[in-house]
Amino acid sequence: MARKSSLSGFNEWLPAERMVELHVLQTLTEVFRLHGFTNIETRAVETLGTLLRKGEIDKEVYAVSRLQGDEDQASDDPNRLALHFDLTVPFARYVTENAGYLHFPFRRYQIQKVWRGERPQEGRAREFTQADIDVVGDGQLGFRYDIDVALVMAEALSKLPIGEFTIRINNRKLAEGFYRGIGLDDTEGVLRNIDKLEKIGAEKVAEALQDEVGATAQQAEQALALAQIRTEDTGFVDQVRALGVEHELLEEGLTELAEVIDQLHRRVPGTAVADLSIARGLDYYTGTVYETVLVGHEQLGSICSGGRYDSLATKGKRSFPGVGLSIGVTRLVMRILSQTMAEASRSVPSCVLVALTHDQDWDTALDTAQQLRERGISTEVAVSAEKFGKQIKYADKRGIPFVWFSSVAEDGSVSHEVKDLRSGEQVPADPTTWMPPADDLDPQVRATR
Amino acid sequence: MARKSSLSGFNEWLPAERMVELHVLQTLTEVFRLHGFTNIETRAVETLGTLLRKGEIDKEVYAVSRLQGDEDQASDDPNRLALHFDLTVPFARYVTENAGYLHFPFRRYQIQKVWRGERPQEGRAREFTQADIDVVGDGQLGFRYDIDVALVMAEALSKLPIGEFTIRINNRKLAEGFYRGIGLDDTEGVLRNIDKLEKIGAEKVAEALQDEVGATAQQAEQALALAQIRTEDTGFVDQVRALGVEHELLEEGLTELAEVIDQLHRRVPGTAVADLSIARGLDYYTGTVYETVLVGHEQLGSICSGGRYDSLATKGKRSFPGVGLSIGVTRLVMRILSQTMAEASRSVPSCVLVALTHDQDWDTALDTAQQLRERGISTEVAVSAEKFGKQIKYADKRGIPFVWFSSVAEDGSVSHEVKDLRSGEQVPADPTTWMPPADDLDPQVRATR
Repeated sequence: MARKSSLSGFNEWLPAERMVELHVLQTLTEVFRLHGFTNIETRAVETLGTLLRKGEIDKEVYAVSRLQGDEDQASDDPNRLALHFDLTVPFARYVTENAGYLHFPFRRYQIQKVWRGERPQEGRAREFTQADIDVVGDGQLGFRYDIDVALVMAEALSKLPIGEFTIRINNRKLAEGFYRGIGLDDTEGVLRNIDKLEKIGAEKVAEALQDEVGATAQQAEQALALAQIRTEDTGFVDQVRALGVEHELLEEGLTELAEVIDQLHRRVPGTAVADLSIARGLDYYTGTVYETVLVGHEQLGSICSGGRYDSLATKGKRSFPGVGLSIGVTRLVMRILSQTMAEASRSVPSCVLVALTHDQDWDTALDTAQQLRERGISTEVAVSAEKFGKQIKYADKRGIPFVWFSSVAEDGSVSHEVKDLRSGEQVPADPTTWMPPADDLDPQVRATR
Repeated sequence: MARKSSLSGFNEWLPAERMVELHVLQTLTEVFRLHGFTNIETRAVETLGTLLRKGEIDKEVYAVSRLQGDEDQASDDPNRLALHFDLTVPFARYVTENAGYLHFPFRRYQIQKVWRGERPQEGRAREFTQADIDVVGDGQLGFRYDIDVALVMAEALSKLPIGEFTIRINNRKLAEGFYRGIGLDDTEGVLRNIDKLEKIGAEKVAEALQDEVGATAQQAEQALALAQIRTEDTGFVDQVRALGVEHELLEEGLTELAEVIDQLHRRVPGTAVADLSIARGLDYYTGTVYETVLVGHEQLGSICSGGRYDSLATKGKRSFPGVGLSIGVTRLVMRILSQTMAEASRSVPSCVLVALTHDQDWDTALDTAQQLRERGISTEVAVSAEKFGKQIKYADKRGIPFVWFSSVAEDGSVSHEVKDLRSGEQVPADPTTWMPPADDLDPQVRATR
């Protein structure tokens, strides 16, 4: 991990590190699959028109142009191509384009790289992998999917070697209803400032609310009082009511958030809290919003975020409301590796190296290897009859646990022995029946604490 | 498949199509893994300096720039970023950068998207997935790896639903030695013209050899005679000898190619031929070169190509010779789908839909689903108690084979039944022990002929 990447913000893993990442990806994939999410991928590029429609982060976008072709395009041409910066906007575009071929509600997972041109810093990369799940409906989408996707992510995260985590959940309707109830109509403006609470503190947020959103001192105080509510169960409902604000939208939000927290509290106890300070930067969320922190690594930022969006994907009068969450896989893997929270048992898939006694026995060695592979045992074959010490060192350096010897006698008969490099024990073996211990068959990625 | 992509050259698959692609990728991954190849990924961007060092295809490169940042870079600035157009050049860069952390010979597979800005046409996309294997040594790499990688790819391709294929193999030393033997020293120039043989015919190639490489009519005739040799076994050796040309390098090439063909002929009969017309465009190959065509789809172009390169990766005086092959996954999948060579048995992973009789039974339904998932059965849960006909239609449209009914009696006890949508049969079942037939558990991708 002392290596530095040759391009700042673009990480590349060594083989054993990549195994940890693959373990994370396979674990997520398996949970998503068990919950009936189907996989898609979208192209890496979108038009600027699609990417920037929702207003956000134009500074972070990487534009793409053919080296000897499109360079005369205006830099803000909406048909210009750029790399996607998340998977939600491309997914919304995919849904509207392919609506006629999809079945709704459509459950999909998507695991791909995304790119952002922002300044690289701890926990942030310019190229990183996201793992998203979303459920999208045609015209309408039942509220219970807000609970469904959170349960899936809680299960997925609990199977990763990352220790404890907390999903912090809020609801946009609750916040907007409350702000309207106290007379603040610029919900975006209030949320944008509330979002800074953890970073700059209550006093500065109160000032900003007065300076930027035109709140009175009392309104700012009330908005901050709401943001400070945080409960592990549905206790937040009474705490909000105690603030004495009334609004129809607030009631709707309270009911929704209580239902989400209630189910998570019962089904995955200890993993979710109602946290009314959660704002989420993206303006397309309309209901439940989620953020997730690793306990003890809160400064890493959110590792799994998302929410309900009612009008991100539209096609004429037809709209496709959705709800989903996105795991920042690269951010998680960087933390797992830098803190050695998990390690791979070896850096190669190979369980067996078939050694060579004589150069001319290569053919026999290939036969042996194929017999082992037929039973799922990953096997390499030496290509030259170097000293045994050297061949064993080859296996040992890679963590390959077994070295196999197939000796061809003068009469053409072959005898086989297999050596366990850890115990040094060498025993006769039959390549058509021998099996390694289950733990040795494939590299294991194990949590180290 | 009647869909058109909204950006020419950038394909996106529907869920059932993606399942076919995933089947291809999983099949390849499993074979690579069984042969001891470890996985890595490299970043999507390289500097222009790295990408264009080897001379090739600058017109096809997609440059990348921060929308509000690097736009004042000169278009040929070697530090400028661009999307990689293959996985070999990035891999060579990765090897030299990380040489101190890798064990040689280093066996890796790499499956990623690459981008080329060329004009989209049948069989060519601007974004496509490649699956590469390479073995790279430190300073030297045994010749037998040239056979090893070809055997791995022959095995991998034979497990895909693509019908018959032919790996066409040649050797650069053989070609260069032969050309030198007849007095032609511009190997690159000769190969560039020989490469057009299939496209423009022998007569035009002969003319071009005389016009562009300065060959005599007799030399052109000899070069063409070599290129017309094609044998399924090592018979090509005698045919080359019959042309009466002598050169040390030619001998070396003949010996190497004979060894490769001999092993492939014996181990994977009918899949490889010696084809002395194979040139491969890339100038970094130095020995064995491979191309692969689908029998009956030759006009699709090569679906698996590669070769031996002795000096692609260098670090000061240290060189890392390698040999590898790359499968054009997208090209293959496009063909599989457009010709319906394989199909997925359903478009979702879900094997079971747990239906809802009453809205308030959702909790019970979630319990049932979790019991099924614990034994690896992909399960979805309805979120509202719509009419059974509608819930069954939901499952049926997606190809979900089973619908589960958990009825909660007034005393709180739960009874379970499962319905097979194909037979219509509905029977009592226990969610802690019930298993579907093995073929129904996960979606199957089956060859259709």
